[in-house]
Amino acid sequence: MGIHFRKIRALMPDMTIRETDVYVDGEKIAAVGEAPEGFHADTVVDGLNRLLLPGLINAHTHTYMTMFRGCGDDLPFSEWLMGRIDPLEAKMTREDCYWATLLGNMEMILNGTTASIDMFIFTETASRAAEESGFRTVLTRGLTGPDGGQRRIDEFMGEYRDWKDRCSRVTFALGPHAPYSCSEAYLREVAALAKEEGLGLHTHISESQFEQQTIREQYGCTPAEYMDRCGILTDRTVAAHCVYLNESDMQLLAARGVSVATNPVSNLKLGNGIAPVPEMMQAGINVALGTDGAASNNALNLFRELSFVTLLHKGRTGDTTLVSAAEAMAMATRNGAKALGLTGCGEIKAGNRADLTVLDIDKPWLRPHNDLLSSLVYSARGDETTDVLVDGRFLLRNRELTTIDRERVLFEVDKTCGRLGLLK
Amino acid sequence: MGIHFRKIRALMPDMTIRETDVYVDGEKIAAVGEAPEGFHADTVVDGLNRLLLPGLINAHTHTYMTMFRGCGDDLPFSEWLMGRIDPLEAKMTREDCYWATLLGNMEMILNGTTASIDMFIFTETASRAAEESGFRTVLTRGLTGPDGGQRRIDEFMGEYRDWKDRCSRVTFALGPHAPYSCSEAYLREVAALAKEEGLGLHTHISESQFEQQTIREQYGCTPAEYMDRCGILTDRTVAAHCVYLNESDMQLLAARGVSVATNPVSNLKLGNGIAPVPEMMQAGINVALGTDGAASNNALNLFRELSFVTLLHKGRTGDTTLVSAAEAMAMATRNGAKALGLTGCGEIKAGNRADLTVLDIDKPWLRPHNDLLSSLVYSARGDETTDVLVDGRFLLRNRELTTIDRERVLFEVDKTCGRLGLLK
Repeated sequence: MGIHFRKIRALMPDMTIRETDVYVDGEKIAAVGEAPEGFHADTVVDGLNRLLLPGLINAHTHTYMTMFRGCGDDLPFSEWLMGRIDPLEAKMTREDCYWATLLGNMEMILNGTTASIDMFIFTETASRAAEESGFRTVLTRGLTGPDGGQRRIDEFMGEYRDWKDRCSRVTFALGPHAPYSCSEAYLREVAALAKEEGLGLHTHISESQFEQQTIREQYGCTPAEYMDRCGILTDRTVAAHCVYLNESDMQLLAARGVSVATNPVSNLKLGNGIAPVPEMMQAGINVALGTDGAASNNALNLFRELSFVTLLHKGRTGDTTLVSAAEAMAMATRNGAKALGLTGCGEIKAGNRADLTVLDIDKPWLRPHNDLLSSLVYSARGDETTDVLVDGRFLLRNRELTTIDRERVLFEVDKTCGRLGLLK
Repeated sequence: MGIHFRKIRALMPDMTIRETDVYVDGEKIAAVGEAPEGFHADTVVDGLNRLLLPGLINAHTHTYMTMFRGCGDDLPFSEWLMGRIDPLEAKMTREDCYWATLLGNMEMILNGTTASIDMFIFTETASRAAEESGFRTVLTRGLTGPDGGQRRIDEFMGEYRDWKDRCSRVTFALGPHAPYSCSEAYLREVAALAKEEGLGLHTHISESQFEQQTIREQYGCTPAEYMDRCGILTDRTVAAHCVYLNESDMQLLAARGVSVATNPVSNLKLGNGIAPVPEMMQAGINVALGTDGAASNNALNLFRELSFVTLLHKGRTGDTTLVSAAEAMAMATRNGAKALGLTGCGEIKAGNRADLTVLDIDKPWLRPHNDLLSSLVYSARGDETTDVLVDGRFLLRNRELTTIDRERVLFEVDKTCGRLGLLK
């Protein structure tokens, strides 16, 4: 199928915005600028008042947690987690997880996001949701151990083997949960398995002061050092949070080629603080952008994260030049693709996958167009999204979802929330 | 004209959300719950999937600065202000200011805001814009002196006298700009004039570390103490920013009955930091919420500010209970009305002015409705706004602006930006 984006402003790999023509053939971007020979357009998207972005990439989330949006907000952290979220999660069935994942996929698509890396309980349900919704995802299961650790690995590996050749958009990584929830032996086992199976790793590192303290007391080192000595820090590892990295931790992550997923909203909401993003970039770390789960955000909207990640560091340091609009946009696109190992994603260029987002830029809050990139990062809200494509297939077309039955999903989610005693 | 909001979820003065009926008669809310005797509804707004809020109130902005959205972002502060914004502002005509104000009014209406307090260059153009758009506004002119100070006062007082009985939605306050831009004698003169004319005051206090230092060197006290000894701190004063107040400053502002307008996004963007909002509330200060101008934000969207004002303080202190959703919503409604002296605004109750905002809550990012108030503060974006009323008149009806010619405004704003060498 051929799609011609005609005379459209597009975000180029050098982070400038330029009017051009973009041609999609099948799953790929066939050309930018001149039409490829013999190109036939089945669909023409006129560029008037439109802007084309590489689909945004969510580098850390727990999509199924949309079910718990707004549960226990403004409570002390332990009351929120142990008193509210954990007991709810324990009651969640595979089916609940499936519908909540579709709600999350829907929300991400509506906000211009085309891919995520996701830490799950029931990985298989997320595979199914992504297969049906057309969303691109890297799936992991939160692995904690030793208690029940082997069972979790076995279940995950079973689901991975069932799914690994089934849908090219659904890939997998191993998800050792965090330094404080995994023993040293367990982490080493997971690291060895990743190597053996050729899988990447996704984990949480240095999210809270509590974690810093616990790991220091238990192992006499920082969480990053602990993860490194267990073999978890590799060039295929995505480490979420990293709020409390010190200078030498940053050098370590940079040397190992680890990507960091920063989650500015979640870190604030859970009282964990502000991650040293400019310092990590300075150290040469690939920094990508994530939302974390809806229970600690409460949205899966990367446009919100873009404004937080730029503004927080200016405010924290007093240096207004830190984390520019272009740097933030790179985190949400190119850096995300690199972190997730999504070859051919994250940039609009010939040969890349056609994972694309179209925005309506004729909005009062984006006008005048004195600096469009700046407007996208500092003013856009997500609702400017009109079209979203993954592998050249429209998941959103003229603001209508094409793959997800919105009403059915909302109905099923409400049904579960009713059963769990939620909903007000 | 009678409007019946039928079976609609509404934010009550106690900050709970309850399903009820709301009846508007002319400019006022006639009743909440039971219909008033003999009530006739010309318009029925069905409450299915809708939520009714008191119109949000923007407690600090410079609306005309929408013209400079995106100009000089990510530059060092002095380069932004002196190198970019000041020279542009100097070239702005009255007519430019009028169209930019309508753009700002449009943006605020589309985001559920019904009123603002505004510091202007050409006050008269803002009066005209507000008269036409149906928006409610408290207008001030930025007064600096002694150089040109008397001229600015005279011009403002002339415009004030021309307008004070012309439009009940347009009221006025005196706008002594800031401690560092006004001499002691000038501030005393403005304070005396405010007393004589029965006018409120709007000013900037303690926005930056630079200001703290300058005032300390020049007057041997804090900006708040300086403003107090000049008579500027009254129970009709709205002080924007207050990022660097110390404990004793807070006691002082509380004792004088000053309202503070906090502008979380602007304070971050300009590298000024985070205002001590929970501490100010604790001291008993009435804290309201503002956007500041679009050049330092870059949006006039109080939903964005709601998420920043709640999240920042949890992140800054580690205490996740600080600045709850209800407290933030109070800042954007009731506290704003108190700060601006808008009697009968900021709460949905019988006898109050019908300044109301209707939101579509059937959005995936607000679902499930486990906690609607929480969803409004932590997930809503502004685009949920379907209807906005001021004094019982629809300014937005089913997402369509009824008083502002959108295309004309955008055309005129672009024309000016073209002349000023902006637009990319």
